[in-house]
Amino acid sequence: MEILVDSAALAAEAGDMKTDTICGLKPVDALFRRRPEAVLRLFYAEGLRAAAGPHCSILAAARKPYRMVEADELEKIAGTPHHGGMVAVARARIPVIFDVLQPPKVKLLLVLDGIGNPHNLGAIARSAAFFGVDAMLLSEGAGDAMPSDAAYRTAEGGLEMIDIYRSRNLPNILANLDGHYRTVAASLSREAVPTRELPRDRPIALVLGNEENGVSPAVMEACRRHVRIAGSGRVQSLNVAQAAAVLLADLTGAIG
Amino acid sequence: MEILVDSAALAAEAGDMKTDTICGLKPVDALFRRRPEAVLRLFYAEGLRAAAGPHCSILAAARKPYRMVEADELEKIAGTPHHGGMVAVARARIPVIFDVLQPPKVKLLLVLDGIGNPHNLGAIARSAAFFGVDAMLLSEGAGDAMPSDAAYRTAEGGLEMIDIYRSRNLPNILANLDGHYRTVAASLSREAVPTRELPRDRPIALVLGNEENGVSPAVMEACRRHVRIAGSGRVQSLNVAQAAAVLLADLTGAIG
Repeated sequence: MEILVDSAALAAEAGDMKTDTICGLKPVDALFRRRPEAVLRLFYAEGLRAAAGPHCSILAAARKPYRMVEADELEKIAGTPHHGGMVAVARARIPVIFDVLQPPKVKLLLVLDGIGNPHNLGAIARSAAFFGVDAMLLSEGAGDAMPSDAAYRTAEGGLEMIDIYRSRNLPNILANLDGHYRTVAASLSREAVPTRELPRDRPIALVLGNEENGVSPAVMEACRRHVRIAGSGRVQSLNVAQAAAVLLADLTGAIG
Repeated sequence: MEILVDSAALAAEAGDMKTDTICGLKPVDALFRRRPEAVLRLFYAEGLRAAAGPHCSILAAARKPYRMVEADELEKIAGTPHHGGMVAVARARIPVIFDVLQPPKVKLLLVLDGIGNPHNLGAIARSAAFFGVDAMLLSEGAGDAMPSDAAYRTAEGGLEMIDIYRSRNLPNILANLDGHYRTVAASLSREAVPTRELPRDRPIALVLGNEENGVSPAVMEACRRHVRIAGSGRVQSLNVAQAAAVLLADLTGAIG
């Protein structure tokens, strides 16, 4: 079976279908666990032949191509040197538009308001999956990160483990989520409460904001409660991916 | 006063003195707060003229040069486009060799065993400063990150707020720290205890390991206790910078 490995040719072959290029052992493992039917083809380095075995069996049964390739070819397919020896091309997963009338019923809904850096999105998804978060809602605006090759890579499989929703109107959604969730925005304000003062009797929608500017004023306004992580004051703030990990650890009861 | 801004010329002018190139508003602010005498010169973009004012006064009083420069010149001085509009050149801060007979007396000693990525070192230092950690001990081996321009930038001032020590023999140090600290290594093992089972009656030396391989076997062996962050099992681990933030938040009592 001859397989085209030039990525431009691959795209052409797939017509206008949008694809995800998922790089790395753990991200590809998670992809095969969660949506094997979406995988279009698989490429791997010689050193990962054994690890690729089960995936190749799945693809063979579905008459889909897979191939061991040289490092430089893998880099070309991945579009990055950070391919970790394994690259899967899959039908793109498009986040579902959030329906405020039928919100997901989860214990903790993680809401990202304006995260711009795909590595932060990936890192946050990794932490969210680690702490057992089931659903994530992303603001969909200019400059907002959506699941991407870089985010999948950083998430180490975490993005596959979470239902991803999107919305162009977070303030409206949050204002109307109140019957289902306690809406809680992360804040640097001294008026925000420390996490230990948050009631835990109902599901929480936790909102984290943009890397530079934090949660936007309209979203802040729409949330019933504002929470802060108590710090020493020696530096102003945590990086948003670290703040996410700390708040998720706390709110899921993993620590404390 | 004529000032050389070519970095090669700067280095030559300074003889063989090692220098740190500290980029960004918050890192430079922290530098001037903590070791103003170490600053050799300062460069800034027009938009940060007001912010640079107090720093320029300090340098003027010490007869040291400062100058507003164009963006491309700033990038050349910084050696990176991520200069944030302000760049200070300072005498390099060399971490102190850790003396196990006279260890620092702090509540929480953060020990990094083989962190390789300077951005992780910076991110961990930012979190450590945020949670009020006073001292950090770094393993000093091939590939281990030491404070660097990239680490200072990512730390957002956090590296300046912490006493930094180094050692080529962490296992020996940790084995001998037992009189002063409870030695605790972060682990992914199911046999490690969750944080809530750690006694808090004595100062803790918390060890975090390499990005890929975790804490090295010899260091693991030298630590009295192993701690893990309880997770869902959906992804194997947290990124080390996120794990650091969660453990520091917990052990400093910031959350929970």
